[in-house]
Amino acid sequence: MFNFTLTYTDLYQLSMAQVYFLKGKTQEKAVFDYFFRKIPYQGGFAIFAGLHDFLELLENLSFSKEDIAYLKTQDFDESFVNYLADFRFSGKIRACQEGEVVFATSPILQVEATIIEAQLIETILLNLLNFQTLIATKASRIKLIAQEKTLLDFGLRRAQGPGGYYASKAAVIGGFDGTSNVSAGKDFNIPISGTMAHSFIQSYDSELEAFRDFATNRPKNCVLLVDTYDTLKSGVPHAISVAKEMEARGNRLLAIRLDSGDLAYFARKSRKLLDDAGLSYVKIAASNQLDEFVIKSLQEQNAPIDIYGVGTNLVIGKPDGALDGVYKLAFAAGKPRIKISESLAKTTIPHRKQVFRTYDEHGNFSGADVIAMEEEVHITQMNHPFEPYKNLKVEHFKQEPLLHVVMENGKKVNPSPSLQEIAAFRKQRLSLLPLEYKRFDNPHIYKVGISDALKQERDKLIRSHKN
Amino acid sequence: MFNFTLTYTDLYQLSMAQVYFLKGKTQEKAVFDYFFRKIPYQGGFAIFAGLHDFLELLENLSFSKEDIAYLKTQDFDESFVNYLADFRFSGKIRACQEGEVVFATSPILQVEATIIEAQLIETILLNLLNFQTLIATKASRIKLIAQEKTLLDFGLRRAQGPGGYYASKAAVIGGFDGTSNVSAGKDFNIPISGTMAHSFIQSYDSELEAFRDFATNRPKNCVLLVDTYDTLKSGVPHAISVAKEMEARGNRLLAIRLDSGDLAYFARKSRKLLDDAGLSYVKIAASNQLDEFVIKSLQEQNAPIDIYGVGTNLVIGKPDGALDGVYKLAFAAGKPRIKISESLAKTTIPHRKQVFRTYDEHGNFSGADVIAMEEEVHITQMNHPFEPYKNLKVEHFKQEPLLHVVMENGKKVNPSPSLQEIAAFRKQRLSLLPLEYKRFDNPHIYKVGISDALKQERDKLIRSHKN
Repeated sequence: MFNFTLTYTDLYQLSMAQVYFLKGKTQEKAVFDYFFRKIPYQGGFAIFAGLHDFLELLENLSFSKEDIAYLKTQDFDESFVNYLADFRFSGKIRACQEGEVVFATSPILQVEATIIEAQLIETILLNLLNFQTLIATKASRIKLIAQEKTLLDFGLRRAQGPGGYYASKAAVIGGFDGTSNVSAGKDFNIPISGTMAHSFIQSYDSELEAFRDFATNRPKNCVLLVDTYDTLKSGVPHAISVAKEMEARGNRLLAIRLDSGDLAYFARKSRKLLDDAGLSYVKIAASNQLDEFVIKSLQEQNAPIDIYGVGTNLVIGKPDGALDGVYKLAFAAGKPRIKISESLAKTTIPHRKQVFRTYDEHGNFSGADVIAMEEEVHITQMNHPFEPYKNLKVEHFKQEPLLHVVMENGKKVNPSPSLQEIAAFRKQRLSLLPLEYKRFDNPHIYKVGISDALKQERDKLIRSHKN
Repeated sequence: MFNFTLTYTDLYQLSMAQVYFLKGKTQEKAVFDYFFRKIPYQGGFAIFAGLHDFLELLENLSFSKEDIAYLKTQDFDESFVNYLADFRFSGKIRACQEGEVVFATSPILQVEATIIEAQLIETILLNLLNFQTLIATKASRIKLIAQEKTLLDFGLRRAQGPGGYYASKAAVIGGFDGTSNVSAGKDFNIPISGTMAHSFIQSYDSELEAFRDFATNRPKNCVLLVDTYDTLKSGVPHAISVAKEMEARGNRLLAIRLDSGDLAYFARKSRKLLDDAGLSYVKIAASNQLDEFVIKSLQEQNAPIDIYGVGTNLVIGKPDGALDGVYKLAFAAGKPRIKISESLAKTTIPHRKQVFRTYDEHGNFSGADVIAMEEEVHITQMNHPFEPYKNLKVEHFKQEPLLHVVMENGKKVNPSPSLQEIAAFRKQRLSLLPLEYKRFDNPHIYKVGISDALKQERDKLIRSHKN
């Protein structure tokens, strides 16, 4: 669908790369961390998504001939542009598994490559991972509430242009069952789903006739939209007539769809009409500005809705719209590196790292992840990353490293899991997260700390920069 | 950059098209309106964008062989899928000019084609036009405040995946001067711009040395980021040293960039340090979570900032994130068509239409657009579209039709204007919009009404559906 090349980047990556190139630093090694600072939606967790799209792209990413010709028209040194013509990423990447439950501050992914390579891939890495993680997280929140109800993505028309393609995919990682987006369905093997538009009914002189044509032509896959003129006086009665005609032909109406008005009220009234007509097998689908909060309300009212179609609020990750994921230098030219900020919370954490998740005695997440030096194996105590006197003993917890090598020498080390496998992993991991982190209102804060060794290293670097 | 094909659509478009096809309605004509219901950002206007990208795509849009093979695996009739293999859009489109100042309710674009054609292009039309209009509108709001200051788009890393490509372009329509997004710069001929990242400085043992390398290697295009360690004690003094060294070589430091802290405070302090060093030509660029409101505050404080770099809030159209543009059937099978809703505001307006903009005696927009029947030429009175007893005489105003034929028989009737021409048109049109519609707080509401003739037609259709 997309022809990404390495000009899908910010200019400054190229400007910096040119300086490194002209200074003879083409072999200088660097380590960058990818992490975010704020969990979206004021929530208690996020779902990491987009990794395998990114890795597959990265294996083949280069500058096209057209790119090179363009760069020669810009303010670059010709020898540098010629170097870019053969550029390929040949580094190493360690990352959490795609679908993992992740938290703020903690590195989700670490790139180890030449500093030129690491810079040139920064923008596309952030662009793809930030967005898919944002949407998978949104979808997983909706899934937590909708439970076993069917969830369909209807958002493409309001998506941020071609961003909608990845939104449909990330929604499945978060727990959606299908999408109306045919191209995403085709490319990612997602069940495609859809009903009919008001225009179909309007184009006929009679709603009944429109329903009838739809039912005879799509006997196995018929959902009738019942709110074009009057839901209870016209739409549902006509749907019932057509359902009876379908029964006479040995077919079954799948569902009706409500797309306006008070969905709880219309669902209950429609359910009654359908049941009274002996059509208890006909499902009810609902759409119209749904999000996790509207669905929570509908579920609490026991609205007899079987299928939720979610559009805009899902695919644009409303209200946040962006994950604030960043990519920060942790090591370069043989030394740990830091960026100082007036607030410790924005001071970066140096060094190659590992992240340990701790487990309680029941095998659930204990509520504490520890960022450690790469070579550490078991953590005794973790320290609050920004508040100097807070710490927590974690020695007694089972600990599991979260960062695994996913790319070596520019090649993926394993084949990509299927979308369904990623979704299953998300489901399994979320089941280990205690409820208090999943609630929408003031969720419990999952602790992310740093090991004693890493804290000493960071504080030493801060002191050396202060002098 | 993108290989859009006609599977970039919602499944229901294909489901409905199959019914039309199997019912022999391949020649049935329909007319659809594209319009939005709510101006984004609680603003007083929107800027129409994305038209020419859409038209260029549409001229060549088809199903690929891979698409056809995929559709044959889904629940479709084989004769219908074979029909799709040769499908091309051959209809007519009338639209406002790209860059036009537009308002809610009023059709911005009208598609007249076979109903199958009109349905199959709906999703991609909405997807592209909604998003670019959202971003061009955001950018134009920022431009209104920033006036002659330089505006740069730095948003790609936080954009909604590949949506960022079009965001960078739409920003220019709205008034931005350049982008960090190299691929958009290349494809749309936008000046590319950028500075350096904190990582560049961190990768050196000394900030001064990092600045020096950057300056010697990019003598014509050097902007130094001064907040990695300590803006006033380290960053700016080092930048001054390097600027002096550049002067000695006959070069000039372009600017410094501030990316954290209180931008007004640091800009003023930095300006003083630069001026005292005889470097009044060195500009100050600022970035970090900017939007039209932060820039308004900085401007009101007379912060000495010359260049604003705007990222996330621009490219995701924060806080709205989506324009609620819709595509509604107005005419089909030789008859005007309507969708009734419980509220008149969501009842659609039938018929082929024209939109007239009215001008006051100074040649400015008078604050009233009239939606009329296509064949009307001058409007006497306009009626509030939803409130039955409100009307306004407009006979005395100069009136200008806004919808022009842009595509005929599936081909564009004119070559696409350049991005710079579209931006110039936006600028000229916005200059005709009185100030009270441009303010951010409770802007005056631009009136959009319907002509007497159109009102009569709509009310007649509503009555006939009520019976």
